[in-house]
Amino acid sequence: MYPVKSYATLGATQPLAPFDFSRRDLKPHDVLIDIRFCGICHTDIHQVRNEWGHSIYPMVPGHEITGLVSEVGNQVNTFKPGDKVGVGCMVDSCRTCPDCQEGLEQFCSHPIFTYNNYEKDGKTLAQGGYSTRIVVDDKFVLKIPQNLPLDAAAPLLCAGITTYSPLRHWKAGKGTNLGIIGLGGLGHMAVKIAKAMGAQVSVLSHSRKKEADAKRLGADHYYATSEPGTFEKLVKTFDLIICTVSVDLDWNQYLALLKRDGTMVILGAPPKAPTVSATSLIFGRHSLAGSLIGGIKETQQMLDFCGEHNIVSDIELIPIQKAQESYERIIKGDVKFRFVIDMSSLK
Amino acid sequence: MYPVKSYATLGATQPLAPFDFSRRDLKPHDVLIDIRFCGICHTDIHQVRNEWGHSIYPMVPGHEITGLVSEVGNQVNTFKPGDKVGVGCMVDSCRTCPDCQEGLEQFCSHPIFTYNNYEKDGKTLAQGGYSTRIVVDDKFVLKIPQNLPLDAAAPLLCAGITTYSPLRHWKAGKGTNLGIIGLGGLGHMAVKIAKAMGAQVSVLSHSRKKEADAKRLGADHYYATSEPGTFEKLVKTFDLIICTVSVDLDWNQYLALLKRDGTMVILGAPPKAPTVSATSLIFGRHSLAGSLIGGIKETQQMLDFCGEHNIVSDIELIPIQKAQESYERIIKGDVKFRFVIDMSSLK
Repeated sequence: MYPVKSYATLGATQPLAPFDFSRRDLKPHDVLIDIRFCGICHTDIHQVRNEWGHSIYPMVPGHEITGLVSEVGNQVNTFKPGDKVGVGCMVDSCRTCPDCQEGLEQFCSHPIFTYNNYEKDGKTLAQGGYSTRIVVDDKFVLKIPQNLPLDAAAPLLCAGITTYSPLRHWKAGKGTNLGIIGLGGLGHMAVKIAKAMGAQVSVLSHSRKKEADAKRLGADHYYATSEPGTFEKLVKTFDLIICTVSVDLDWNQYLALLKRDGTMVILGAPPKAPTVSATSLIFGRHSLAGSLIGGIKETQQMLDFCGEHNIVSDIELIPIQKAQESYERIIKGDVKFRFVIDMSSLK
Repeated sequence: MYPVKSYATLGATQPLAPFDFSRRDLKPHDVLIDIRFCGICHTDIHQVRNEWGHSIYPMVPGHEITGLVSEVGNQVNTFKPGDKVGVGCMVDSCRTCPDCQEGLEQFCSHPIFTYNNYEKDGKTLAQGGYSTRIVVDDKFVLKIPQNLPLDAAAPLLCAGITTYSPLRHWKAGKGTNLGIIGLGGLGHMAVKIAKAMGAQVSVLSHSRKKEADAKRLGADHYYATSEPGTFEKLVKTFDLIICTVSVDLDWNQYLALLKRDGTMVILGAPPKAPTVSATSLIFGRHSLAGSLIGGIKETQQMLDFCGEHNIVSDIELIPIQKAQESYERIIKGDVKFRFVIDMSSLK
């Protein structure tokens, strides 16, 4: 067993606090990773606070993990000590269902998420990346391109793949007029990735507050949805809309901005299920779809793509002692655009 | 001008009653059709009763028209007197927008529907098929295959194309596990067309009442959604679901029946906009889409397809004097599966 330092929470109303535990001994296909950085995803907050109702404690959150391989099991031949690697939202899956066979493990009925569920043994709590080390089966370990810094690459493991996957699946590229709703952790990655794919990118945000940032990140256009006339002006504009925000919105207003045969893809669940008018779908043959992170194979493709295009997240690096207060800033939208924990602060 | 007999309604609460008016003189591309049959679509009831709030009176409803060409304009070379023809929901469109250019006139911003709007001159009320004759531009006249009877072919012009179009667009065929919600005018056409396309067809209906009919029409499976356990049993079953009913349903229950990457297509608007949970879309990468009748080119393809496969509607033929009471029976679901007016009753 490998002793590990971490920050965990012991209950929905408890603060993150130092927590020691052990990682399993290496099985033949396991990789021991010395965690250097871990991004903070809004999901961490939902889970830590049991906002989705199925939290298990103690909980070490974190699924945007980067680090260096420190040891490998005796059957591992794709990684060696010193390699730059990452771990995202999943650390295993059933591997036999059609979804797993097709490399779409995120849709497996029995995925093992990086934290807040049990490992394959059914009794060990999987613990996440706000920690010094992690042991992961090599099939779920990703290679980080040499040219990407480990700190700013960490958010690619969730925010990156969550936006890359739908952009690829719905074929964003040259000639695609793309709308991105929201410019937070996901939204800013969507802008960078979609631009690199060749799409024409518009950011749709509530106010003008983020306009300069959107342009700096590469957006071609910026629209403040709170300004009168914005929706009317943009009717039938977009081939594809990616909704990166989980707040209550009138989806029908956005569906009206799609061209014929356009698709709006939802990445997060708003607090209240929105109403969808059938006419928003029927007129224009629109589709409303959802997308969930991405499979392991596609996550590697995304990392390689980001390597080629020198894409990383815009981050604010913090010591783990500030993770708790960063949650409040995330909820207020006060971050450009992702907090990443420097794990050296824990050692 | 051509004098025409018809049944019209003079206001939302008025009964259908005899009404005489005239059709325009033939322009070079016009076709004069001697109407033999006209199907009764639920849309007729909505429009006659102003349930969608934009009815114009006097209104001659009817957009499932079949008949014989009796005269043609001097530039018409695709039709000649005696030809078996049909007219559906549209009699013209702008013809210049991208949708029209691609043969998807149903999405044109300025379509001319067969009734309840003004013709291209902006002042003549377009009047529908509960009438003895109609004048239509040849681009919007369809050829009815020789082997199809004009009475049972009439509903193909709306119910047929409304179901054929999404089945083709979402590629129903061999290997497709298809769910059809509802077995009314649209649903029974969907079963016949989808079977001819090679799909495996399941009908999802509230009770067991229509099971024998569904099987007779060719459905492979039948499920009564009111029976306990039906939804649980069918989770992740269908590649494609076509919702042919316009009643209040929990769309989320049906989205859960889709396999990964499955699509549910909505053909009609329920009275109350349903709520859609983001998780119904995100888990399984599901799509919720809409479809609206079909373009003229596709309508001809549908008719040719129905000719090849000997597909027509199951109808109950009535004299026009019974159209009014047929509305009540349609609302009660008491028809197998489409009323068609025999226009000889009007002459």
